[in-house]
Formats: sequence, C-alpha cells, structure tokens
Amino acid sequence: MITIAIDAMGGDHGSEPIIDGVVEALEISKFTPILVGAKAEILLHLPLYYHDKIQIIEANDVITMSDSSTDALKRKDSSIYKAVELVRDKIADAVVSAGHSGATMTLATLRIGRLPHISKPALATLMPSTAKTKTLVLDVGAVVECKAQNLYEFAIMGEMYAKNVMGIDKPRVGLLANGEEDSKGNDLTKETFGMLKKFDWFIGNVEGRDIFNGHVDVVVCDGFTGNILLKTSEGVAEAIFTLMKQYMRKSLPAQLGAMLMKKRVFANLKKQIDPHEYGGAPLLGINGCAIIGHGNSNAKAIKNAILQAIAYSNSNINSSIEALLTETK
Amino acid sequence: MITIAIDAMGGDHGSEPIIDGVVEALEISKFTPILVGAKAEILLHLPLYYHDKIQIIEANDVITMSDSSTDALKRKDSSIYKAVELVRDKIADAVVSAGHSGATMTLATLRIGRLPHISKPALATLMPSTAKTKTLVLDVGAVVECKAQNLYEFAIMGEMYAKNVMGIDKPRVGLLANGEEDSKGNDLTKETFGMLKKFDWFIGNVEGRDIFNGHVDVVVCDGFTGNILLKTSEGVAEAIFTLMKQYMRKSLPAQLGAMLMKKRVFANLKKQIDPHEYGGAPLLGINGCAIIGHGNSNAKAIKNAILQAIAYSNSNINSSIEALLTETK
Repeated sequence: MITIAIDAMGGDHGSEPIIDGVVEALEISKFTPILVGAKAEILLHLPLYYHDKIQIIEANDVITMSDSSTDALKRKDSSIYKAVELVRDKIADAVVSAGHSGATMTLATLRIGRLPHISKPALATLMPSTAKTKTLVLDVGAVVECKAQNLYEFAIMGEMYAKNVMGIDKPRVGLLANGEEDSKGNDLTKETFGMLKKFDWFIGNVEGRDIFNGHVDVVVCDGFTGNILLKTSEGVAEAIFTLMKQYMRKSLPAQLGAMLMKKRVFANLKKQIDPHEYGGAPLLGINGCAIIGHGNSNAKAIKNAILQAIAYSNSNINSSIEALLTETK
Repeated sequence: MITIAIDAMGGDHGSEPIIDGVVEALEISKFTPILVGAKAEILLHLPLYYHDKIQIIEANDVITMSDSSTDALKRKDSSIYKAVELVRDKIADAVVSAGHSGATMTLATLRIGRLPHISKPALATLMPSTAKTKTLVLDVGAVVECKAQNLYEFAIMGEMYAKNVMGIDKPRVGLLANGEEDSKGNDLTKETFGMLKKFDWFIGNVEGRDIFNGHVDVVVCDGFTGNILLKTSEGVAEAIFTLMKQYMRKSLPAQLGAMLMKKRVFANLKKQIDPHEYGGAPLLGINGCAIIGHGNSNAKAIKNAILQAIAYSNSNINSSIEALLTETK
C-alpha cells in the first residue's frame, strides 16, 4: 500500500482543511497517511475514529511565507523538512504539502534528489480546457532561468506524466511560443524546438490559447513564462466574473437570470476552472513524488492532491523518464 | 488638421470594413484621410458623398499573411509600403493598417525611422480591467529577444503614452514578473528593475493578474512573454464563454436565465473585453505614428484605431520620449 507523508501545518488556513482532506481521501482510497506537524493540534482536528489509525510524526516548526526557501534546509524540525525526509528515507512514497512552495521544491530537490539525467525538476500544473481532457503546463515556477536542455527534459517528463499518470494514450506535447509557425519563438524555444523535433509526440509550437481549446495535452515553457501564464489566466477569469457581477447589480432581470443559471451553468463552470479540483502541482524529475498544493488549499484540494500522489506512486513515471533519458543521451 | 494614411487593403475581410471605419471616424472627428489601395475597389465601397472628399493613392500590391516581413521592404507598390511612405515624407501624421503586422512594423521602423535613443520600437496594446481605466501592455510582439535596455525604453514609452495619449495623470508602471517581491524575476527583469527604480512612476514587479484588476496602468515585458500573455488572455475568455454555452445547452431554465442576462450583462461584458473596442496597437518609438490593427478588424476597430492615431498625433508623446531619454542618457 502507498504511504503518503502529509505536511499538516503548511497551508494558509492552518491544519484543519489539511486533516479534513486526508480524511476525505481515506474515505475513497486506500493508502497509509503519515501526518507531520504539531501532534496536539493534529489530534484536535482529527476525528476520534482515526486517532489510532493514523500515524503522526511530531514537528514543532513551520516554514511560513515570510521565510526564504534556502532557510528551509536548516530548519530540520519543520513539518515540511520532516515530511520530505520520510520520502528520502523510503518510509513514504510521496509527500504532499500546501506550505511554502519554494521551500518544498528546494527540500524535495536537494534532500530526495533528482532522477539521473535530470538537470532541474519542473513544477507541472493542470489547466482547464473546453475539451474533455485537461492540459498539463510545465514549468510554472521551479526554473525561472532555463536552458534548452531544461525545456527538453520538461517535455519528456510532461509526456511521461500525461501517459503514465493522466492516462492519455498518445499525448500531444507542444512548445509555448509567440506563434504556431516553426519559425516563431525566442532563442531558447528555437533551440529546444530543434532538440524535440525527433519525437513523434512533439507537435511543434503552440500558442497561449491552445492550452484551453484541447489542441494540445502538454505545454512546455520556462518557469518565468509559465508562472506569468498561470497568474494571467487566473486574473482573466476573476476579471470576467467581477465584471459580470458589476453589471448584474444594476439590473433586476439580470439577477433573476443569474439565479436561473446558477446551478446549471455557473456552478459547473466554477467547478471546471476551480484550482481546488485539480489537486496540486507535481514536482517532476525528483527521485520520488512531491505534490505541491496551493497555500489556500481547502479539504477538497488536499484530497485531490493525495489522490494525485497515489496515482503518481502507482505509475512507472520515474523509471520511464529515466529509461528514455538514458536511451536518448 | 491631422492627416491619416490608411492601408485600405490589408485586413482579413477586404477593404469594405476599413472604408466603413474611415467613414464612421469622419462622422465623429475632423481629420484628413488618405486611403491607399486599389482605387476601383475603394470607390466601390466608398459612399458617393465622399468620392470627391477623400484622397485615394493607388497601390496595386497587397502584402498577405503568407509573405515575410522583410519582403515588404521590396514591395514598393504595396498599399502598406505606400501608406508608410506618406508618414516618412511628412504628408501624413500617422498610418493605420490592419494588414500584415510584421510587415507594418518593419516598414514603420525602417522607413519612418526610430526616435533618437530608442534601440527598438515596441508594440503596445490596451487590455480590459475591472477598474475604470484600461491597462497598457508592451511589448506584445515587436521584440521577441529583449535586453534590459529595451525594457527600460519600453517603460519610458509606456509611461509617456499613458500620460500623453490615455490622459492618466500619474501612471503607475510595473515590470511583469513571476511574483511581486523585488527579489522576483528572471535575469532580464532583475537588471531592468535596477535601471527603473529611480523613477517615481515605477511601482516595481507586477503579476499577470494585476493587468486586469486596476493595480497598474502600464505593464512592461519582452515581446515573447507579452505575445503569450495576450493570446492566453484571449484563450481564457473564449474558453469561459464556450463552457458557459456548453452547460447552457443542457438546461432550459439556464437558457431562459441567459436571455435575461443577455442585454444587461453579456452584451456589456462583451463590449468591455472586445478587442475591436480598443482600436489598434500603437508602435511606440518611431519618429511618427503607426497604429497596427488586428487582421480581423471590423469597421468599429478601424474607427477606433483612427481616433487613436488622431489622439497620438495631437499629443506631445514623441518629443516627450525624446526629451526624457536625452535627459537620462
């Protein structure tokens, strides 16, 4: 059975939603959770039924948003440090954290270590699309300054994740650029294009809009661009809903209309684009599994992140990445 | 009176919407239009009343989307070449084109020439926001590979455009990065940050979401990132409307609700985010004025692009840019 180490302290809303998420995940899937954090606080939120069924590892320090990522390496009694160590020591298969994402990435990369032939791990996130499938985008913030070799490895890891964890038979992998034509791109993406064109799963350059229309399964970019893309997307969606509300306030018929649309349209739409539905972002390229949740993760987001960690750990993704990179070396 | 040269041939939908746009602009503003293109075709779409009121310059070649930008320099009988030459020869104050944007940028840069101290011109575009003002983003595709000096100049040009053309008293100029903290950014934006911090209008790093929430008036980025940002934003908005329609089709009450919301909410929202409402994208940094419209510009978009060209030409933006860059040199 898969064992998941969960940082019980890291999120913006304390340990309650994290523990609720673990309980929700236990109700639908079999796995062994290890909660890492302040035992007294964890027991306070954990239903009595689970008190003797869940292992708790005491950790008395929490890395907060005001701490630097590199400091995390010295804070050996922090919940995230101890949770990561469980994967390093092969006690757990995966770690899930909604805490300081920079600290989690640093610890996972340096303490668990990278897969052979991986220069730098990448943070991957799922984004909504009008098609039935979601789109995986990587990197969204782990490697701000990228070389072509980084993007090349990101593409391979993304393809493997889409195939092995998302269950897409023949994933289409695209390189994010300022136009679809082969001639488009900056120096970085042009060099990467040349390295990727040997793969039959590489469909060439894609544009920002392709993430959302189902034309591509995996979108590869550097962490600077990916992070901007992510926040821009969230900003556009928020702005559309804010504007709709502003106009609605001025019209009674429109408010009635909104009530009629609420359940069948807005609720479904919200669900479709709600980041909590997507769980967390896997850090691809480490010798284990780390799922990084958003700081404001609710119980649903934690549950989904745990399910993602289970699917990851049950797959052959890491050995497949290693095999392909060894082969194409 | 301001004279505007208009490429009558370049758009995706032929000359009709372009000529309609010129007529619409003439109904609300005083300016002298010079239409450049196939005279017979222009006269066909031009209302009889205007036949002896509008000057037409014959051009028998059109640069199409399949042509390369550099080819445009040799195609001296093309409508865009001749329209740009009118600005170069000081016959017109500004050129408006909905044709091949790469060709227009190349011609405007090389034939009209750059302002003193400007390394490379930037394409700027207005984006919707939930605040009353719009946000200017530059560069959105003119300079794919940027140096810090380019971004530095873009920031100055953006500030000047916001003040002189958009009429914002104290524009807030931000640098697009992967986080708001001063420490965030890639090598390029970090170097630019250091150069810009001396200006009181520079508010530091901003995130993608800030474009849409009114926290900033001018957002500076390289042309690769800006282009991706633009297409991502369009993609998200399209996806939200597509998903809403998909859910609506499945529910009669929701369809009734949508009817009630149509006029007061959706129509206003559409207007607010409709690129046609924003006219075109000014190419900042040339020794004149060039407004580049979207290929699929309708009459409204052309009208707005012309009004933008008039406001630009009536302002002191170019001399202000030159003065500030000379002063800070």
